Amino acid sequence: MPNARRRPRAARGRPAGRVATRQNILRTAIQMFAQHGYAGARIEKISHAAGSTDRMIYYYFGSKENLFIAVIETIYEELGHAESALELAGLDPAMSLRAIVRFTWEHYRAHPEMLALLNNENLMQGRHVARSKRVKELSFPLLSILSGVLARGVRENVFRRGITARDTYIAICSIGYFYLSNKHTLSAFLGTNLMTPAALERWPAVMEQVILRFVSLDGPAAWARS
Amino acid sequence: MPNARRRPRAARGRPAGRVATRQNILRTAIQMFAQHGYAGARIEKISHAAGSTDRMIYYYFGSKENLFIAVIETIYEELGHAESALELAGLDPAMSLRAIVRFTWEHYRAHPEMLALLNNENLMQGRHVARSKRVKELSFPLLSILSGVLARGVRENVFRRGITARDTYIAICSIGYFYLSNKHTLSAFLGTNLMTPAALERWPAVMEQVILRFVSLDGPAAWARS
Repeated sequence: MPNARRRPRAARGRPAGRVATRQNILRTAIQMFAQHGYAGARIEKISHAAGSTDRMIYYYFGSKENLFIAVIETIYEELGHAESALELAGLDPAMSLRAIVRFTWEHYRAHPEMLALLNNENLMQGRHVARSKRVKELSFPLLSILSGVLARGVRENVFRRGITARDTYIAICSIGYFYLSNKHTLSAFLGTNLMTPAALERWPAVMEQVILRFVSLDGPAAWARS
Repeated sequence: MPNARRRPRAARGRPAGRVATRQNILRTAIQMFAQHGYAGARIEKISHAAGSTDRMIYYYFGSKENLFIAVIETIYEELGHAESALELAGLDPAMSLRAIVRFTWEHYRAHPEMLALLNNENLMQGRHVARSKRVKELSFPLLSILSGVLARGVRENVFRRGITARDTYIAICSIGYFYLSNKHTLSAFLGTNLMTPAALERWPAVMEQVILRFVSLDGPAAWARS
């Protein structure tokens, strides 16, 4: 049932107003899909929570499926933008890599909705991402930053040759993502609370070690120098 | 609605029959909860698929919640049993650790239902594992095998001191689990199919490197010797 209680004023306004309406729906959809899952977040709920109408959602996104695709694209895009804003210029390769590891961890911590949305999409066999043409372009900034750092490390004789950005990227994401995404079962299974302030401060330091050691040259440890 | 079409013959039989009935319900519940999620796997569906009755499920497990707790305990228990069966006696510490890494990867690959169940439980904030008294005991075999290997590595001067079994365990699980659990979004995002035979053969070799390098002593690489 369309929710007609509020008139779609913004959509008839200036382009800025339209962008704001679309953005508002998208932000609300991110939260609702993360909280209730794809199936549970009904369009009526999203339009109501956004103070908009079902009609506006269909006007801007076409369908619930397309709205979800836009949600996934948005969270990836924002990840790329945030990482691109990292100031790596003054840092040596090891410190740059550490900054990327920390950034990834902090981004996941600040965006639990990202983990919920991706888990949800994977439980649905990735049927929405498969339909997105944009999603694979959105990894480009992340992989190119990482490639640059790895290449510089090889040139400066601190990182091994032949380590790919993709493997390194998956490894970095894994160790941060799994810890947070599986915090409940992992805490219960290991008999320890992984979410205490001390545990949360400790884990990114472990992540740094794991990743630095993976890419570093053998011999006097490059990771110990910085 | 209880499903009364089939009579609970097995439950009235010998103890072996009762164990078989309970096991049959449990195995069916593992598949159904993995496939449909906690909310989606209704008791009637499970009893029907198990060729049993709702009454039998309540008789053996008391409630849907307790059945799910038994499911989570069972998957952890089976992981522990399987890892305990690894033959590590003749292997040096590095090869033992590699075997554990491979084992973890293969276990996740062979048991996609484990990943689905744990993801589901984490999306429910781990409310079932929190009620299980047994679950934390079930990590004991896994952590004690790993502790033994790490301690032997320190004694034989190939592994670093101060690396905890818990950190190593989380790191091993992370890198295998995330790759498989997030295969759909990750493949789409990275623009590559992570599930080709070649990719699946490659990843555990990367996992081995990451973990061996994390625990190994600096200097002439211990991981390169075996």
